[in-house]
Order: sequence, then C-alpha cells, then structure tokens
Amino acid sequence: MRLGLLLDDVSGVPQTLREAVRYALLSTGKRLRPFLVDRCAVLVGGQPADAFAPGAALEMVHAFSLVHDDLPAMDDDDLRRGQPTCHKVYGEAVAILAGDALLALAFETLAKGVSEPRRAAALTAVLARGTGWMGMIGGQVDDLAGEHQPMTLSLVRTIHDRKTAALFVAACRMGGIAGGASEAQLVQLEEYGRHLGLAFQIADDLLDVTATPEEIGKNVAKDAARRKQTYPGCVGTKQAVLAGVTEVNTAIAALADFGPEADELRALARYVMARWT
Amino acid sequence: MRLGLLLDDVSGVPQTLREAVRYALLSTGKRLRPFLVDRCAVLVGGQPADAFAPGAALEMVHAFSLVHDDLPAMDDDDLRRGQPTCHKVYGEAVAILAGDALLALAFETLAKGVSEPRRAAALTAVLARGTGWMGMIGGQVDDLAGEHQPMTLSLVRTIHDRKTAALFVAACRMGGIAGGASEAQLVQLEEYGRHLGLAFQIADDLLDVTATPEEIGKNVAKDAARRKQTYPGCVGTKQAVLAGVTEVNTAIAALADFGPEADELRALARYVMARWT
Repeated sequence: MRLGLLLDDVSGVPQTLREAVRYALLSTGKRLRPFLVDRCAVLVGGQPADAFAPGAALEMVHAFSLVHDDLPAMDDDDLRRGQPTCHKVYGEAVAILAGDALLALAFETLAKGVSEPRRAAALTAVLARGTGWMGMIGGQVDDLAGEHQPMTLSLVRTIHDRKTAALFVAACRMGGIAGGASEAQLVQLEEYGRHLGLAFQIADDLLDVTATPEEIGKNVAKDAARRKQTYPGCVGTKQAVLAGVTEVNTAIAALADFGPEADELRALARYVMARWT
Repeated sequence: MRLGLLLDDVSGVPQTLREAVRYALLSTGKRLRPFLVDRCAVLVGGQPADAFAPGAALEMVHAFSLVHDDLPAMDDDDLRRGQPTCHKVYGEAVAILAGDALLALAFETLAKGVSEPRRAAALTAVLARGTGWMGMIGGQVDDLAGEHQPMTLSLVRTIHDRKTAALFVAACRMGGIAGGASEAQLVQLEEYGRHLGLAFQIADDLLDVTATPEEIGKNVAKDAARRKQTYPGCVGTKQAVLAGVTEVNTAIAALADFGPEADELRALARYVMARWT
C-alpha cells in the first residue's frame, strides 16, 4: 500500500509537522486495518482500488491513536515499532498536533478518494463513529480510568470492545461498503471484525506478559506496572489464551456464509493466536 | 444554536469524556463560525436548516483546537472564556481525548446531518482541509515554532493565515456550499472569510496587549511573555490597528456583488475592530 503518496500534497505544511506525520504513519506497522478493508471489499465483489482510500484513512486514524496513546499524559511510552515514539523525536507539542493532523487527513482522504458521494458519506460516518467517543477514543478513556479500578473481566471486555474492536469493526464494515456488500454481509463482516479485534487485543495483552522488546518493538511488562485492566492480569495466561482462541473461532464462524474466497480472513484470525496454540 | 442536542446520543460514552466534551463545547463562546456558516448559506439562497450541521461541525473543530492549544505542552493556559481550561478540570489525558473526540464528532455530524451525499462529501473535504496540516493545525505548529524565531511581519501573516483565517475561510465556503452558492460566490465568500479571519486575529493579538482578563475571559499579556509572533509585537499597537482596519475593509469589499442582504456580514467585519476605531 503506497501510503506515502497521500502525503505528497504538502504545500504550506510546516516542515516539522510533515516529518512527524510521515514518521508516525510510514513506520513499519503491520497495516492490518487496510488489509482488512481490502480483503472485505474484494470478498463482496469490489475491486482493490475501492479499498485504497478507506484503508489509508483507517491507517491514519490508527497512527493518530498510537501517537496520542504514547504521550506522557497517557501511557507515557518511549518505544514503538522498534523506534523512539513520536513525542520523543519531535517533542510533545508537535506530536499532539501530528496526531490531530493525521485524524483530519483521514477524513480528507476519504472525502477526496471516494468518488461516489453516497459511499463517501457512509464511509465517513462509520469511520467517525468507530474512532470517536463511542468507539476507540472512548475506549482509551476507559483504559486510563481502569488503572484506578479493581480488575474485573467485564471491565476488561468493555475496554477491549471500544479501545480495539471498534476500529476493527469499522475496518470490516468500511471494506464491505467500499465493495458494495449487502446489509446482511455487512453484519457478518462486522461480527468477524469485532471478534478478530477482541482476539487481537487479548494477544496484545499476552505479548506484554510473554514477549521481549526485541520481538515486538515496544517495551513489555508495562500493563502490570500501570495496573492496566488486561485479560492475563484478570484470569491468568492460560485462561487468556483460551479466551483468545474462542474469539478467533467466533470470528471464523461469522464467515460461514462465505466460501473459500474468505480463507485469507480465516487464516488471519487463526494467525492472531498462533504463537500460543 | 442548540448544539447540546448533538451531544445527547451518548450510549457507551464514558461519563468523564462526556462531561469534558460538553464542558469544552457548550461554554459561553461567541459561536462566530456557526454564525458565519448560517449567514453565508442564507445569503446565497439557502435555508438556516442547511447550515446547522456544518455550523455545529465547525464549532466542534474550534472547541477541539482550543482544548489542545491550552494544553501544558502547547500554550499552557489555565483560563478560557472565564473558566478553568479543560485540562485544569479533567486532567491532561482526558483533555487530549476530549479534543480528539470533538474532532471525530465534527466529521460524524457532517456525515449524518447533511442528507445530500454530494454536498456532505464537499463539506467534509473543505472542513478537513481547513482544519488539517495545511490549515489550522499547520498554523498552530508555526505559531509554536515562531516563539523561537525573530519576529517578522511576513511570519506573523503566514501564521495568522493558517492558524485563524483557514477556518474562517472554511466556514464561509461551507456556508456557501450548504446554501447552494455558485463557484463565483464561493470565491467571494472565501475572500471575505480570509480577511475577516486576519482582522479577527489582529484584534485577538491587540486584546492580549490592551484588555483585562475580566473583559475577555482569558489571561492577558501572554503573547509577549511567550515571545509569540504578533502584529502589535511586530509593528506596534497603532500600526496593528491600521492593519486590522485594512483587513476589515478588504473583507467588506469582497461582498461588493451582494446587496443589502449581506449587511450583517459587513457589520460583523466592522464589529471586529470597533473597539479601536
């Protein structure tokens, strides 16, 4: 995915801001959300070109969320994807503004990159809702507040649902919309996205307990230190793995109406928990 | 303008975040940008109802920008509109996320509140560009960087153009689009918006030098203390007033093709500098 192309129209953008945005967006992430958009779009009969702008917009929202989550006032992380975090390189003010710029650019990318206006408006609504106070941003508030609350499984699940799954749901729905899915297909894709997102966050919690910084490019054992609400913290590593596998199976079951053309999405779901199974 | 109505659909929004967003959005601001959208829409033949969602979206973007600008890492202000700033009340993390939520909500409001898809997509593109790294957010980066540069009039003008005028331009263009303006009318409205915005920022700079905190609801004499690039700092109070008046006149001249139905917009422009003329 040639995300960098979208950053080339930069007349009048201050140099530092341009660099900070490129640094945040073009680092070696997995590009999982654009991949989901692409595969969901193609699965329902769309073309990869239909998925480009929505996928890029989602990756921008994801990059924005990482830059802001890493800030000193939030999770205070100094390592991300094996590199110093954005505010470590460019300072806190520019990092806040680079995150803001990425969020605005996500909506600009959708508005300009989707030629069919009805589809553009629908994609914008889904992206905004998945990102906003009922979705990912709300989840981040819950996540920070959770550091000061007794750990419970129901709280962990609420946080995971918003902090992580909301944007996976948006990715799958956006892919479906971009590819011209029926309403029934959209519901199935959302169900897949939600459980994939929950599995993904359980795996992320597990990696914080079991991996090394070299393996995952960010610091580890942070969650316990900050008293985060996590699956392994709540039910232990073994039960957390079982819960992750259950989410993977539920995600795969949501694709039952699709044929072998959904195998890549099924394989992706299995891959999320593969290290522990 | 019943902005609060747009904040009532809050299922699943964490309580603190909801309160912080309401606090930031519903404080006693002037609602200048929604007013501009409304008057520009009606001027070109639209209905006030056409302007509601675009005006609300702009006010959300404006509120987001104030919350983030006031943060300790940015301008570090503790008073806004006569009240403690958002991060003083809710803490820095929630303030950052409340700003983020307002920005996402602005685009959701546009996507949901404008029923004609082509118009919604056009409004989204204009709002994103005016907000983003080429517009207001870029201007904020320049503004902060300007604290460490020698003061020059050309730098002041560049900063004002992006930091303030870009969103005024967006407001007038969005009003025009919402009301069904011709391309020629859009150009005139943008020209008005740009010079109104420049006059507004010169007046804002002047108030920081000449007003009391009680009069304007925020701390004063901050710009000189932070070595901000400002008009009065650069050319003195008297020349700054003259420059502001010139901008007002240029703004009014841009409305020459409109009849007396544009008188409210003309009066608004004169009002910006009225305290010094």
